[in-house]
Amino acid sequence: MRLKTKSLKLLAGRPVAILHKNTARKLSVYAGERINIKNNSQGMIAIVDIASGILKEDEIAVSVEILNFLKLSEGCKVDISIAPRPLSISYILEKLEGKELSYEQLFKIVKDIVNNALTEAEIAYFVSGIYVNGMTLTETAMLTKSMIEHGKKLDIKNVVDKHSIGGVAGNRTTPIIVSICSSTGLKMPKTSSRAITSAAGTADVMEVLAKVEFSTDEIKKIVQKTNACLVWGGALGLAPADDKIIQVEKLISVDPEAQLLASILAKKLAVNAKHVLIDIPYGKSAKVSTKKEALSLSRKFQQLAKFFKIHLKTVLTDGSEPIGNGIGPVLEAKDLIAVLTRDKDRPLDLEEKALKLSAIILEMTGKAKKGKGLSLAKEILESKKAYLKFKQIIRAQGGNLDKINSKLQPARFNYIIKSEKNSKVVHIDNKKIAKVARYAGCPADKSAGIYLNVHKGFKVKRNDVLATIYSETKEKLDFAINLFKKSKPIVLR
Amino acid sequence: MRLKTKSLKLLAGRPVAILHKNTARKLSVYAGERINIKNNSQGMIAIVDIASGILKEDEIAVSVEILNFLKLSEGCKVDISIAPRPLSISYILEKLEGKELSYEQLFKIVKDIVNNALTEAEIAYFVSGIYVNGMTLTETAMLTKSMIEHGKKLDIKNVVDKHSIGGVAGNRTTPIIVSICSSTGLKMPKTSSRAITSAAGTADVMEVLAKVEFSTDEIKKIVQKTNACLVWGGALGLAPADDKIIQVEKLISVDPEAQLLASILAKKLAVNAKHVLIDIPYGKSAKVSTKKEALSLSRKFQQLAKFFKIHLKTVLTDGSEPIGNGIGPVLEAKDLIAVLTRDKDRPLDLEEKALKLSAIILEMTGKAKKGKGLSLAKEILESKKAYLKFKQIIRAQGGNLDKINSKLQPARFNYIIKSEKNSKVVHIDNKKIAKVARYAGCPADKSAGIYLNVHKGFKVKRNDVLATIYSETKEKLDFAINLFKKSKPIVLR
Repeated sequence: MRLKTKSLKLLAGRPVAILHKNTARKLSVYAGERINIKNNSQGMIAIVDIASGILKEDEIAVSVEILNFLKLSEGCKVDISIAPRPLSISYILEKLEGKELSYEQLFKIVKDIVNNALTEAEIAYFVSGIYVNGMTLTETAMLTKSMIEHGKKLDIKNVVDKHSIGGVAGNRTTPIIVSICSSTGLKMPKTSSRAITSAAGTADVMEVLAKVEFSTDEIKKIVQKTNACLVWGGALGLAPADDKIIQVEKLISVDPEAQLLASILAKKLAVNAKHVLIDIPYGKSAKVSTKKEALSLSRKFQQLAKFFKIHLKTVLTDGSEPIGNGIGPVLEAKDLIAVLTRDKDRPLDLEEKALKLSAIILEMTGKAKKGKGLSLAKEILESKKAYLKFKQIIRAQGGNLDKINSKLQPARFNYIIKSEKNSKVVHIDNKKIAKVARYAGCPADKSAGIYLNVHKGFKVKRNDVLATIYSETKEKLDFAINLFKKSKPIVLR
Repeated sequence: MRLKTKSLKLLAGRPVAILHKNTARKLSVYAGERINIKNNSQGMIAIVDIASGILKEDEIAVSVEILNFLKLSEGCKVDISIAPRPLSISYILEKLEGKELSYEQLFKIVKDIVNNALTEAEIAYFVSGIYVNGMTLTETAMLTKSMIEHGKKLDIKNVVDKHSIGGVAGNRTTPIIVSICSSTGLKMPKTSSRAITSAAGTADVMEVLAKVEFSTDEIKKIVQKTNACLVWGGALGLAPADDKIIQVEKLISVDPEAQLLASILAKKLAVNAKHVLIDIPYGKSAKVSTKKEALSLSRKFQQLAKFFKIHLKTVLTDGSEPIGNGIGPVLEAKDLIAVLTRDKDRPLDLEEKALKLSAIILEMTGKAKKGKGLSLAKEILESKKAYLKFKQIIRAQGGNLDKINSKLQPARFNYIIKSEKNSKVVHIDNKKIAKVARYAGCPADKSAGIYLNVHKGFKVKRNDVLATIYSETKEKLDFAINLFKKSKPIVLR
C-alpha cells in the first residue's frame, strides 16, 4: 500500500506511525502492531497508532525518528506493509516457558531490541522469562556477547575499570579510585550512569565539577592527556540493548541476576577493559541483601570473566548503611574533594573504602606487589598526587576546581534533624535515605540532598544533630521532611 | 508544576503527554513513566513521551484522549506532578513471583488496567505471572469478578448464552443455534467478537448480512422485538479490562488458562446470562489440543459456574478439522444460510453440530425434556421456523435477507486446488487454513476466503477439486496460493 507522508513532529522515543482507522483495517493491522515503511531502497519498522479525523485514508503520519531515518519530507510517498512478526518473539516465549536459549536466538532478540523491532511489552515478556526461570551461565555469556556485538566500542588498549553493584547511598568512591590509580599510569576511561532510583550517580556528581557528555573521540583525547576520564556513558551507544532492557525492568523494579551480570560485563567489555574490579556491597537495604547472594554473584562474575578472558576480581564490602556524609550531587562532590584535599573533616569511611579498592586495582595490575597496594594508594592520596590528577581530569573535561567553590554550596532551604533522646544509631536505611534525598530534589536539583552527621554505632545525646536536609524550594523541603518523619531512615535504639 | 497545553491532535490509543526534555528532567520523570495532569478539579494519569524542539519548557503537548477527557483547549494551564507508581505494580510483581493474589489486589490491578494507569509492558508482566504460575480457582473467580465490576452490564433478564473456545475454521454454528433456540422464546442477546487470528469472527460474518454495531439501548430494543440479536460486543464496554489484556497476550500469542476462563465468564456474566453452554472443540490444530486439556477446562468452568451461581454446561466437540465448507465472512454466511434454508448442498457437519448444541440448550432451559432436545431442534430447523427467526433478527439489525443474494458472491479472483493423485484426506489443519484465508484478504475483504470441497476421510481421485481460494486482488491471491503450497494445510496420504 502506498501512502502520503504527513509530519506530526512527534518524538516518541521510538518510531511511531499513525494510520487512518480504515487504512489500518484494510491492512488488518491493529494499534501496537508493526509495519514496514519503505522509501525507495531504505526501510524501517514502526509501531502503529490508529487515528481518524486528523489524517486522510491515503496518508500516514510519522514520528521524527522515522522522518529523520528515512529522510522523508511532508507529502512524499512511502510503501507500507505489515511487518512479519519478529522471529525473536517466539524465542522470548521459549524463555518464558523455561527453555535455554542459544546464542543465535539471543543474538536475534538483542538485535530486534536495538532496532526497535520489539515493543516494551515484548521486552517485558523477555525480562519475565529471565526473572522467573533464570539463565544458565552459557546463556548469560551469550546474552553479554550479543549485547556487545550490537553496540559501539571504545578502542583504547589495556583499559582498567571498576564497577559497584550499587544501592549504597553516598558511595562516591569512583572519582577517588580513578584519581589514585590513573596517577600511576593506568588507563581508566570511566563511563558512569546517572541516578535511576538513587539520589545521584557518579555522572550526576561529576557534572557539578565538569562536563560529562562527550563523544567517543573526545573521550579518547581526554584519556590521551590524563590517562583517565569520568564521564556519562549513557549516550555513547555502548551495549544499547542493555539500556532499553533496564528501562523495562524499572517499570516493575526487577533486576534479574543474569541480566545484571550481562549488563555490567557488556559495558566493561565494550570499553575494552582488560582488568576489572567489581565491588559487591551487601546489606539489608543495599541492592544485594545477603552475603550468600553476594558470594553467588561473585562466583558468576569470575566464571564469566574466564569465558571472556578478562582479568576480573570481586570484593565484598559493607553495604549496611550509607558511605560518606553527603547524599546528593553537590554534597557528594564536597565529600570526595575533602578526601582528595586531606580536609580534616573528610569522611573517613569513604576514604577507607576508596583506598581499599584502589589497593586491589594497583596489585592486580602489577603497579604494586602483593600486600603493598594499600601503602602505595595511601602515599598517592596523602601526597596529593591523586588530587593533582583529579584536577587534571576535571580540567580536561572543561572544569576548573580552583574556581568551583561557589558551586559547592548546598541548597538554601534546610532543615536540621535532631535526636529526641540519648540513644545509639542502630541502622541507617540506604533506600529510605535515597528516597528522602529525591523528594528534596535530587538528582535534578544538584545542591539538594542530605548531610549525615552520624553513622551506625554512633552514640547520640538528646538534641544532637543527626542530619540536615537541603532543598532548593520550600515545597520540596517540606515534602522531604514529611517523608523523613514518616519513613524513619535513621533508627535509634 | 504548571504548564501550558499544546494540542498535537494525536490519538495514541491511550493518554500520552509530551514534555520538553528539560521539564522532564526537572520533574525527574522519564519516557514511559506516568504523570498526573490536573485541570481545576479533574485529573487523569498519562504516559510521558519526551521531546525537544517541538515545544517550549513551559508547555505540555497532550493526546486527544486527554484533551477530550479534561476538556482542555490550546493554551490553557494544567498542573503536572509525578504520578505515584500504582500500587498494583507491586501486586503484579507478587504474581510474577508465584504468590496467590487476593480479591483486593486483583480488583486494583483490573481497575488500573481499565483506567490506563498501567502500561502495556506492565500488563505483560501480569500476563507472564499468570502464564508461568497459573492461578488458583479462587484467584480466577476473583479476577472474573473484578473484570465484571469494572465494566458495563446488559440489564436483560433470564439470558441464555453460548460460547465456543474457538480455533476451528469455519465453525459458524452461533447464528444457527441462536435462530433455533430463540424461536422457542429463549432470550439470546448474543455478542460476538471479530476475528483476531482467525479468518472470520461471528461479528465479521454477520456484518455481511446486517449491521452489527449497536449501543446497549439499541440491543435491548432488538431483543424485545426478536428475543435475540447477533452483534459485535467489542464497543459495548462489557469487561473492558479483558480486551486490553487480550491485546497484550496477542503480542506473544499466549492465552493462559485462568485468563481465558475469566475472560469468557466475565463477558457472559456482564450480559446477565443465567444459562450458558460452552463448546470446547479439541484437536491437534485447534486452540485446545488434547482431550485431557479439554476435560480440565470443562471442570474449571463447572467450578466457576457454581461460584457465580449460573447454570453452565460444557460440551466437548471434534476440533480436529474445519467445520462447514466456507472459510471467510461471505463463504461462511452462505454456509449458514444454506443450512437454514435447507439447501440440498448445505454442509451437513455444520448442521449436525448446530443441532447438537441447540439440543443441549433446549434441554438445559427446560424447552425440551431430557432426550427430546434434538428432535425439537430438528423440527424447528426443518420447518424453517429457524430461518424465519433469523430473517427477523437480520431485519431488526437493519438487513434484508431477500435482497442479500448479490452480496453473497465470493471474490472474483480464484484459484482451484486439485489433487495430484488418487488418495485420501487424512488431515486438514485449522491454523494453516485460517492463515491462507487471511493472506487471501480475510477478514477485512469480506468475500475472500477458502471453499473446501473435502473433509477428513474423503477419498479423492487425481484432479478432483480439493478447495478454491478466493481473493479480491491478484496480488493477495498469489500471496495465498504461495502460502497454501508451502504450508500444505490439506494432507493427503
